[in-house]
Amino acid sequence: KCNRNSGSKVTDRLQPVEPLKTEGPSIAEIDSKRKRESGVTEASPMRLRMEAFIKEQQDEIVRDLERIDGGAKFRRDTWSRPAGGDGISCVLQDGNVFEKAGVNVSVVYGTLPRAAIQKMRVNHKALDDPSIESLEFFAAGLSLVLHPHNPMAPTVHLNYRYFETMDKTGEGKAWWFGGGTDLTPSYLFDEDAVHFHKTIKEACDKHGRDYYPRFKTWCDKYFYIPHRGESRGIGGIFFDDLDEETSDQESLFSFVQSCCKSFLPSYLPIIERRKNMSFGKNEKAWQQLRRGRYVEFNLVHDRGTSFGLNTPGARVESILMSLPLTARWQYMHEPEIATMEERTLNTLKTPKEWA
Amino acid sequence: KCNRNSGSKVTDRLQPVEPLKTEGPSIAEIDSKRKRESGVTEASPMRLRMEAFIKEQQDEIVRDLERIDGGAKFRRDTWSRPAGGDGISCVLQDGNVFEKAGVNVSVVYGTLPRAAIQKMRVNHKALDDPSIESLEFFAAGLSLVLHPHNPMAPTVHLNYRYFETMDKTGEGKAWWFGGGTDLTPSYLFDEDAVHFHKTIKEACDKHGRDYYPRFKTWCDKYFYIPHRGESRGIGGIFFDDLDEETSDQESLFSFVQSCCKSFLPSYLPIIERRKNMSFGKNEKAWQQLRRGRYVEFNLVHDRGTSFGLNTPGARVESILMSLPLTARWQYMHEPEIATMEERTLNTLKTPKEWA
Repeated sequence: KCNRNSGSKVTDRLQPVEPLKTEGPSIAEIDSKRKRESGVTEASPMRLRMEAFIKEQQDEIVRDLERIDGGAKFRRDTWSRPAGGDGISCVLQDGNVFEKAGVNVSVVYGTLPRAAIQKMRVNHKALDDPSIESLEFFAAGLSLVLHPHNPMAPTVHLNYRYFETMDKTGEGKAWWFGGGTDLTPSYLFDEDAVHFHKTIKEACDKHGRDYYPRFKTWCDKYFYIPHRGESRGIGGIFFDDLDEETSDQESLFSFVQSCCKSFLPSYLPIIERRKNMSFGKNEKAWQQLRRGRYVEFNLVHDRGTSFGLNTPGARVESILMSLPLTARWQYMHEPEIATMEERTLNTLKTPKEWA
Repeated sequence: KCNRNSGSKVTDRLQPVEPLKTEGPSIAEIDSKRKRESGVTEASPMRLRMEAFIKEQQDEIVRDLERIDGGAKFRRDTWSRPAGGDGISCVLQDGNVFEKAGVNVSVVYGTLPRAAIQKMRVNHKALDDPSIESLEFFAAGLSLVLHPHNPMAPTVHLNYRYFETMDKTGEGKAWWFGGGTDLTPSYLFDEDAVHFHKTIKEACDKHGRDYYPRFKTWCDKYFYIPHRGESRGIGGIFFDDLDEETSDQESLFSFVQSCCKSFLPSYLPIIERRKNMSFGKNEKAWQQLRRGRYVEFNLVHDRGTSFGLNTPGARVESILMSLPLTARWQYMHEPEIATMEERTLNTLKTPKEWA
């Protein structure tokens, strides 16, 4: 478990200021009452089930990562939004194994303006009615980024999220799932790439035969850095806007649960194998350059990051926990011919099939 | 002078591929011939005078910075664009004084599509004619970013540029100057801020009484990081789109020349004072955090950087030379109360008058 519970001044300062509601109870309030009175069961609305699931997953992942690290503990910051929703950021810095590791949950209740609904309509039939002026929404997600110290150990990223729009009474209108997970090695070990992809593929295959190939391709496309002509890493899966056109809500929730639960089995064997490998100054320097590329992708191209940074009152420290502790930019650096560095870079230039 | 002249493979790979012209000589070709045959004089078109001026300035600045550094030499990469124009990137890495220093010149000839002209029309009366379908353009600029090793020595940035649109024969239509310079200390020394601003102000005052206050405010506004609620540094000057509405072309060129020439006097006394100050691990770590903010501004907000990264065939290594060699992101870092770090940060939250 996380070792610190803070409602510090810093956290308070980062809270968005929103007008107080004067009408009846908000959906967030209704949901709070519901949770207090009868807990979350399979009969609860999907938003409460997803929230409960990702919070459980966060605890489990944090516990296992602390065990692997064997040194630092996660710092745990919780905050709540006046308009509804809350978040838990767990961040470990300068551990034995991890240079920086962040495992965040965020839950948001809010109101979507007309323009936002219009954009979402393209992807979701349930929003077809053009007379809708505004909609309540709920969003919950688990995000994770781990940057290990050892250059032989890959960075990993995971994000699973659920989005729902509701009318004023909390009755669901549209809903969808999104997310994925991907691996970013500085030094490519084929066996790691194969293990990572195979584990994810197994989780996918149980739910849809086309899921893995479809979401693997989507991932390669999403995590591409156009100005570098290379991918951020060796991929994994990525998907968004999965609604009733893909499958029913129950099946998709079950799919996302499988994906999420496959994270520890997909990554722990890799970090165990790599965390104590020997390395020198050159390997560290190469890792730092690759971390620079990670920063470039996240700050220039990642839609989640720019959405977050452009949201007034967003908790910037939680959004930017994805950045490595340290990074490096060296002018005109090129790896030597026929080295592991060059081989890794070449793989990032042409996505491969791993499973 | 720079110590290396390369037309390496790396440089070649970064060149944009553009169709070969089949009509008469291009404006770039006409200008080349002009320069070869009669050199650049006060009677030459402004674009050739600006180009000659910034190339001279680059050499002078590079020479002085090598002297100050006393260790590493600048690496000099030159390239040319098939469609016209060329560039010279001078970068020094891991010197005695500078961790990374880049001094770049770029000269570009090209064609502006209708949409780009429409955007520019807002700021320039000379582009008023709505029947114009496409225009030739010329852009030349000098860009400089210096990141010293010593945390007591500030990072500095400078950019001066000239833009011109022409008809097919090379006859000028619209033109404007842009640019500025600004200082980014990790540790604020008031005397440095005062010296920097006073030197720039003197250069401005010779050309227009309202220039310094106007461009100082513009600078504070431009180099603001909204998601952090702080400025990148303690400012300087910034301006763009300065055309005949501000003053005549000759006067504005003379103004930009003064600004550019005031750079060495504005910065050298500061770097001389700070480069050998003693510091410890904590000061270095704070500098690295501030470098992280520099990266955030440049990758998330800087218009020049995103324009460059979105230009197909742009020389990415020249654009990103502005990034520090190393940077750091630490979750929830806050400076201790009543320290130099806190004082510096507070100043970045509320721009001050320095001259």
